[in-house]
Amino acid sequence: MPAAAPGSYAALLPADATTPALVVDGAVVRRNIAQMARYAAQHGLALRPHTKTHKSRLIARLQLEAGAVGLTVAKAGEAAVMQEVCGDVMMAYPAVDAPRCRQLAQLARTGTIRVVVDSAAAITALAEAAVAAGSTLGVLIEIDVGMGRTGVATADEALALAQLAARTPGVRLDGLLCYPGQVWAPAAAQDAPLAAVSARLDATLARWRAHGLEAAIVAGGSTPTARQSHLLRACTEIHPGTYVFNDLNTARGGYCALDDCAARFVCTVVSDAVPGQVIIDAGSKTLTSDLCPPARDSGHGHVVEYPDAKIARLSEEHGQVDVTRCARPPRIGERVTVIPNHICPCVNLHDSFWWLEPGAAPRREPVDARGRIS
Amino acid sequence: MPAAAPGSYAALLPADATTPALVVDGAVVRRNIAQMARYAAQHGLALRPHTKTHKSRLIARLQLEAGAVGLTVAKAGEAAVMQEVCGDVMMAYPAVDAPRCRQLAQLARTGTIRVVVDSAAAITALAEAAVAAGSTLGVLIEIDVGMGRTGVATADEALALAQLAARTPGVRLDGLLCYPGQVWAPAAAQDAPLAAVSARLDATLARWRAHGLEAAIVAGGSTPTARQSHLLRACTEIHPGTYVFNDLNTARGGYCALDDCAARFVCTVVSDAVPGQVIIDAGSKTLTSDLCPPARDSGHGHVVEYPDAKIARLSEEHGQVDVTRCARPPRIGERVTVIPNHICPCVNLHDSFWWLEPGAAPRREPVDARGRIS
Repeated sequence: MPAAAPGSYAALLPADATTPALVVDGAVVRRNIAQMARYAAQHGLALRPHTKTHKSRLIARLQLEAGAVGLTVAKAGEAAVMQEVCGDVMMAYPAVDAPRCRQLAQLARTGTIRVVVDSAAAITALAEAAVAAGSTLGVLIEIDVGMGRTGVATADEALALAQLAARTPGVRLDGLLCYPGQVWAPAAAQDAPLAAVSARLDATLARWRAHGLEAAIVAGGSTPTARQSHLLRACTEIHPGTYVFNDLNTARGGYCALDDCAARFVCTVVSDAVPGQVIIDAGSKTLTSDLCPPARDSGHGHVVEYPDAKIARLSEEHGQVDVTRCARPPRIGERVTVIPNHICPCVNLHDSFWWLEPGAAPRREPVDARGRIS
Repeated sequence: MPAAAPGSYAALLPADATTPALVVDGAVVRRNIAQMARYAAQHGLALRPHTKTHKSRLIARLQLEAGAVGLTVAKAGEAAVMQEVCGDVMMAYPAVDAPRCRQLAQLARTGTIRVVVDSAAAITALAEAAVAAGSTLGVLIEIDVGMGRTGVATADEALALAQLAARTPGVRLDGLLCYPGQVWAPAAAQDAPLAAVSARLDATLARWRAHGLEAAIVAGGSTPTARQSHLLRACTEIHPGTYVFNDLNTARGGYCALDDCAARFVCTVVSDAVPGQVIIDAGSKTLTSDLCPPARDSGHGHVVEYPDAKIARLSEEHGQVDVTRCARPPRIGERVTVIPNHICPCVNLHDSFWWLEPGAAPRREPVDARGRIS
């Protein structure tokens, strides 16, 4: 029976639940959390998971119980949500505008808030807001190590920002950060690119030390490079996000097995009118249009019960599934399980998920920080 | 001043509002609604706008006040929201599973609910739910006219479904529907493809009449073909959605001007650390990863104040804007206005929008049906 295929969540969802439904396997989440916690502990690295993937206080608590030193967020609104479960939150995203800086400065009145910056404008704006709020914001200076997205380019620029932060009331220089998001090589092939990143961090820190500045925190890593972060010699902490759920990107990239994908969509086949194709009730408003860079031709997700099927095309609410290679295609009305390409923006589309715990009935849990866009 | 560039909404957003912010110009919305209403009236076509684009009761009311005969939705949860402003709702999406059919049958107790179907399974499931609820669901049979997504392939199949609907208690045969979503030619080049669609509709209806069946409603059209729907001779009503806001897809496709794009994002430049680039605080969690099919190399949206800029790449919360062609690049902290490629999934990511009315302060309005995924 396809419904009992390994990794199928279809039969686990209550029969009267509507679809598409985001279903999260608590046992797999706990295993993923434990594995990353173990890696970090083995290498003396602090772990501050990025909560953009799950946006859930429940799951953040599990990460903290497993030893995370704090949480990472992308937006000030997410920081407000996560501060309710953790007194130590880092926003790995620049803040330069007054409304966002004010939000952060308010939060810093009741907990530790750190912000990653790559401009003098950000340091000045954060400091002004913190002084007005009577709080202090920690800042980490970001250096670009090859992704070309954010971060200053040179050790001189990083030093200038560190010096500005060190002398500006309202902010506290807490360290240095890099995001090697361009490194998508298999783990075994990451040595050379990460050695180059490590050298960049070392050179920057040497400049700081020469000017009497220290970095209490040196943060690096992404989910693909997370388990190689010990190759960054100066690194003191890592902020992986996707590892908690995993997805086709991390599985096809070789960073986990399909079994490690903890968050899946149970969908219903709503049409089989077009020969060789079925329609599932998950389109781009459920799965997003994000492709799977490590497997560009794999379509828009993996159908667990029908591995020979291909989600070839998405409309907003339709997934067009090519079933010409299936020995037996899915029947109309049948529920199937889909592992998405990129789980983070998918979770962001849903108000709640079904949480599976061994021996307990599935229960709905909120995606607490969904919609906290600023 | 770039902030005063035509079409810039940056200066219209309150200074203390956070970004990214979805801003909707009520005057442009009313103009778009009036134009489509006028076209429909001129050709004797009923207009039942698809609310998937705005998901807003406020805007649905404007469409109804301009003469819309009812509303169209994609999901049962959206139908529940829109039934609060309109007693006549059509779900242009198949329903075959018990939870969805039950929702619809319940709604049919207090208003007219019609559902588009392309299978015997859908008709049977809807009928069963309606009988149990003591209601009646109208059904329209969908024929595929070339998109290859949903809809039966032949007039014989359409006849068989119509006959099944006509004889099954709980459902009422209300008509025929097609969605020529594959026709993206400029309006002037739509005559031949739409003539073929029209012939398909005529042949199907002739078969129905020969068997004593009538279609009270014959629905067709999409936003690109909406203003050519009179070429579908049998067509009685149209369900365009995107026209209410428009987006880069409809503008670059030649179906509207950029000035007709009513929904835009005001974003903040949060980083300028990488030479030749700025980062705006709108990534794929704001703009989605949807490309612009009529202009594939145009990037991820149009920056109104900097038309020479290109949103070259998106991360979840970062928009990487190539500004190498800008005479003067945007400054860090500056607000800019972005017209997205595909407005429908973008609106779906946001809980609320800023509504601009001439002579009034901007006010927040909810995206009422966001999150109604089933």
